[in-house]
Amino acid sequence: MGEKILIIGGTGYIGKFVVEASAKSGHPTFALMREASLSDPAKSELVETFKKSGVTFLTGDLNDHESLVKAIKQVDVVISTVGFMQIADQYKIIAAIKEAGNVKRFLPSEFGNDLDRCRAVDPINQNFQLKVQLRRAIEAEGIPYTYIVCNLFAGYALSNFLQLGATAPPRDKIVIPGDGNVKAVFNEEHDIGAYTVKASVDPRTLNKILYIKPPHNIYSFNELVACWEKKIGNTLEKIYVAEDELLKQIEESPMPVNVILSINHCIFVKGDQTYFEIDPAVGVEASQLYPDVKYTTVDEYITQFV
Amino acid sequence: MGEKILIIGGTGYIGKFVVEASAKSGHPTFALMREASLSDPAKSELVETFKKSGVTFLTGDLNDHESLVKAIKQVDVVISTVGFMQIADQYKIIAAIKEAGNVKRFLPSEFGNDLDRCRAVDPINQNFQLKVQLRRAIEAEGIPYTYIVCNLFAGYALSNFLQLGATAPPRDKIVIPGDGNVKAVFNEEHDIGAYTVKASVDPRTLNKILYIKPPHNIYSFNELVACWEKKIGNTLEKIYVAEDELLKQIEESPMPVNVILSINHCIFVKGDQTYFEIDPAVGVEASQLYPDVKYTTVDEYITQFV
Repeated sequence: MGEKILIIGGTGYIGKFVVEASAKSGHPTFALMREASLSDPAKSELVETFKKSGVTFLTGDLNDHESLVKAIKQVDVVISTVGFMQIADQYKIIAAIKEAGNVKRFLPSEFGNDLDRCRAVDPINQNFQLKVQLRRAIEAEGIPYTYIVCNLFAGYALSNFLQLGATAPPRDKIVIPGDGNVKAVFNEEHDIGAYTVKASVDPRTLNKILYIKPPHNIYSFNELVACWEKKIGNTLEKIYVAEDELLKQIEESPMPVNVILSINHCIFVKGDQTYFEIDPAVGVEASQLYPDVKYTTVDEYITQFV
Repeated sequence: MGEKILIIGGTGYIGKFVVEASAKSGHPTFALMREASLSDPAKSELVETFKKSGVTFLTGDLNDHESLVKAIKQVDVVISTVGFMQIADQYKIIAAIKEAGNVKRFLPSEFGNDLDRCRAVDPINQNFQLKVQLRRAIEAEGIPYTYIVCNLFAGYALSNFLQLGATAPPRDKIVIPGDGNVKAVFNEEHDIGAYTVKASVDPRTLNKILYIKPPHNIYSFNELVACWEKKIGNTLEKIYVAEDELLKQIEESPMPVNVILSINHCIFVKGDQTYFEIDPAVGVEASQLYPDVKYTTVDEYITQFV
């Protein structure tokens, strides 16, 4: 059997991959669901998939403390995958975990850069600092934790090479933030789900950061484009956006373009995913810890778009 | 002379237009600025423009209560234009206004739909509900307020007809949320600034909602496209995204695409900007109240892209 895992936010973008990975892993898997979500036609397909995978639905809501405590009391591990608009709502999960008193591990909704080593500008930095404050609150409460630093989602970054609005990687020209030489990390969502679930029950990740940084998924923008050009047998026109210009665009763009650009800035100009070495006192790397996970490489991932 | 106006968030997307309008109006205009912003190269041009317009900078920070109280004590009106990631930070402004005790009007950062009549889905609804809660907090404290419901920014919606990533309105094909027949309202940013400043010192807007809904700026997506087609002398291929499909896309897209799509959904499918009549007990319409403002019409605005 093993530890019982509860996912809060399981129908969200990354949440569904975590639920799927948990169910596949054989751990009894629970998903906190609002009544409204269970009857939402847009979620019906997902709800069916979860059911077939043996996921147990627990009805509840972040805003209903009793429902939250009741759900949490039934499990060992709580994984939050709530969306980026709900980061501060997770104080309600902390309160419920405290009251329940039985949780062996809490994974707050991170799924991005290591925000204790973050050099982002606003507006995304506003959001990042909420996550940092949440880390400190978890630590202050003495709740056992793991922070999942999964870097970029492949579905977000590789499906269109971050060309806003494009539905496939570009074939003629490409806009590249910065000089294109800064390394970033791109991970496929099923892999992120698998690593997350493994880490959630692993004593080696207790009170640590799990960095998902497999060697074949670390690319600069220029390397990524070169790999793509080779596959399609074509050379793209490259339009580089220098930092000054990018910062100006961030200042002048309305929401949410400014949010996207400020994410690009911290990753592809500042190098926030790769500028530091993993400190073994605080972090471990996923592909080293779990060599059995046959992760999808960037090269494999972009081949589907050729 | 007139009332002294403080803008918090004045270097933000809509904030700079409010600062400009306030300075132009002849009201002594103050901008709360962080030390870091004053020396930020990306903001230097704007800082210079503000200086030339006679804007007084007050150094301070939302997180520094004393600086906030000190700034607020010097003015009559407080207009917040903080970004959408900082909505909840405005409780700090409420606390400072309470302590200062001298504020005749507070305009929280709204600048969108009337959220008390909102039928949005997540993720944007998460953000909208924060704004609703803020309204209730302002009212509970008895702070005199005006809520600016400016509907869509022209620079956001008309510069690319909401075609994600496009830098101009499309000339061959266009993706339209819903059936394209739902009416929305598009307003130019300088006009929004002008209406906002006028309303901030107007007894007729005390404890009211100012709806910026001028008759020539109310268009359905289909009407907008028809107007554009006439101007460019070309017919576009139209790809309609039905509500079911749109909701599914919202579920399946990563941040921030899901945020954008959920904004499109509430405006262009649910009709949240136009489905209700203005209730004179709670709201007034800007172009009726201020006929002297020669606002830019949608027709005029999109002519620049021909």
